Amino acid sequence: MIERIAILGTGLLGASAGLALRTAGYRGGITGWSRTPESAELALKMGAIDSIARDALQAARESQVVLLAVPIYATLDFMEKLSGVLGSDHLVTDVGSTKAQISAVAARLFNTPDRAAFLPGHPMAGKERGGAALADAELFRGAVWLFTDDPDAQRSLHSAALVKSWREWVAAMGSRTIDLDPARHDELVAWVSHLPQFVATALSALLEDEVGDAPELKDVGGRALREMTRLGASPYSMWRDIAYTNTEAVQTALHALEQRLAHLRENLRTPELRDEFEQANRFRQE
Amino acid sequence: MIERIAILGTGLLGASAGLALRTAGYRGGITGWSRTPESAELALKMGAIDSIARDALQAARESQVVLLAVPIYATLDFMEKLSGVLGSDHLVTDVGSTKAQISAVAARLFNTPDRAAFLPGHPMAGKERGGAALADAELFRGAVWLFTDDPDAQRSLHSAALVKSWREWVAAMGSRTIDLDPARHDELVAWVSHLPQFVATALSALLEDEVGDAPELKDVGGRALREMTRLGASPYSMWRDIAYTNTEAVQTALHALEQRLAHLRENLRTPELRDEFEQANRFRQE
Repeated sequence: MIERIAILGTGLLGASAGLALRTAGYRGGITGWSRTPESAELALKMGAIDSIARDALQAARESQVVLLAVPIYATLDFMEKLSGVLGSDHLVTDVGSTKAQISAVAARLFNTPDRAAFLPGHPMAGKERGGAALADAELFRGAVWLFTDDPDAQRSLHSAALVKSWREWVAAMGSRTIDLDPARHDELVAWVSHLPQFVATALSALLEDEVGDAPELKDVGGRALREMTRLGASPYSMWRDIAYTNTEAVQTALHALEQRLAHLRENLRTPELRDEFEQANRFRQE
Repeated sequence: MIERIAILGTGLLGASAGLALRTAGYRGGITGWSRTPESAELALKMGAIDSIARDALQAARESQVVLLAVPIYATLDFMEKLSGVLGSDHLVTDVGSTKAQISAVAARLFNTPDRAAFLPGHPMAGKERGGAALADAELFRGAVWLFTDDPDAQRSLHSAALVKSWREWVAAMGSRTIDLDPARHDELVAWVSHLPQFVATALSALLEDEVGDAPELKDVGGRALREMTRLGASPYSMWRDIAYTNTEAVQTALHALEQRLAHLRENLRTPELRDEFEQANRFRQE
């Protein structure tokens, strides 16, 4: 029933979704749009999309499913524009890393019987650098794809069927789906996704100050250091929107870690250190 | 010229060294000793050693090179005992993660013309879990092996030749050697090795408190979370000695990171966040 999908944003996630849909057996059309033409051309060359749209809104109108794969504020902008041009035979879904604001806008502008459906989504997959060039048909395999759908959505039969179909394609791409309340989503990802990122950024920035002028000493840390700082390569352009749209939850998580580090620092020679290691060991038990 | 090596401690590093020496072409004997007999028997079965010693000191006397691959305080204990039974035709070396105390004891008990040589060493390789069962002939390939040798050592020609020979075997195992002053070593590893470990421990312990009761939510974090908490599995038994013997440098590093996290937390919506991401990006540039 999905004859054409419009992927707005052909970066790492958008282009990977196009490739993954093909691998999963999707035979319909995939139109791609990007703010930077080179990105769309690269996605076309890789087979992630089969045509390039000049006009994102027109491409959305000509598709049944619109996948927004752009930063969060760009997603919010598109939601405003799309709500004016799409109807009850369309589904819009997204891949944004925070969901409270997007879900609130979805409730305001979508999900009535005469409007398009909006299914807020968040695949927990990515790389520390973005761009179509790193796109990967297997990116979503084994990952969790979160949804924060509105239980009060009043959808047309047609758009409700598109929601069901998109969920099936996500499963076919290899992801396990979990449904969460939007506020709970943002709180959870603050702990398990945003906190690790901001820790890696702070650690990498600190180490650049301390040993950045002696490149041979970076090698000393070996695999452990490489892993703990890999996310230090993540771009500000992506994380700015996350910091802005999940500020309180991230602040809570960062503050809790600061206190935990201070506790550990004050107890390097007391039995408390053993307790902290044992609690950490529990987190890593299968 | 090395006919027999005694490996005291046949855990991950000791057994891996035995395997790596064989892979590198070492044809002499390798005697292993362990506090836990099962560990030595496993190392024997794997080919990491060719005989098991009941008496560590006797095994040391019958070897030219003694590799101490035990925790730091056990290394310091062995140094006291070995200095009484070895002479100028022996070399003792170690793999301890902090070097100031070991180097000070080496200067007091070794490295005169009529005593054994002691070469303080620290291979920057390991896994988050220890034990002979995880031993790997390739563990040291591509890693840095630090030495904090004493420029004032007064060695016999024979023991000086053993030092040179051991350095060549370390290179043959695939490691790049770097020589550092012991105090500088401990300061450096506080930043690039101990800080990442203690951060992973604090982060893992905190997340166990926050989401540990919902195992399905651990998967949400994906690869990034797995990497940032892998070292959370590291055992207290190993890190206790490091915390005790490098307390001040680790405290300095932890405190600096606490301040960095607080700065980031207070600037989630200011241009300072961009500066932190850009500084972190620099650390990860090749």
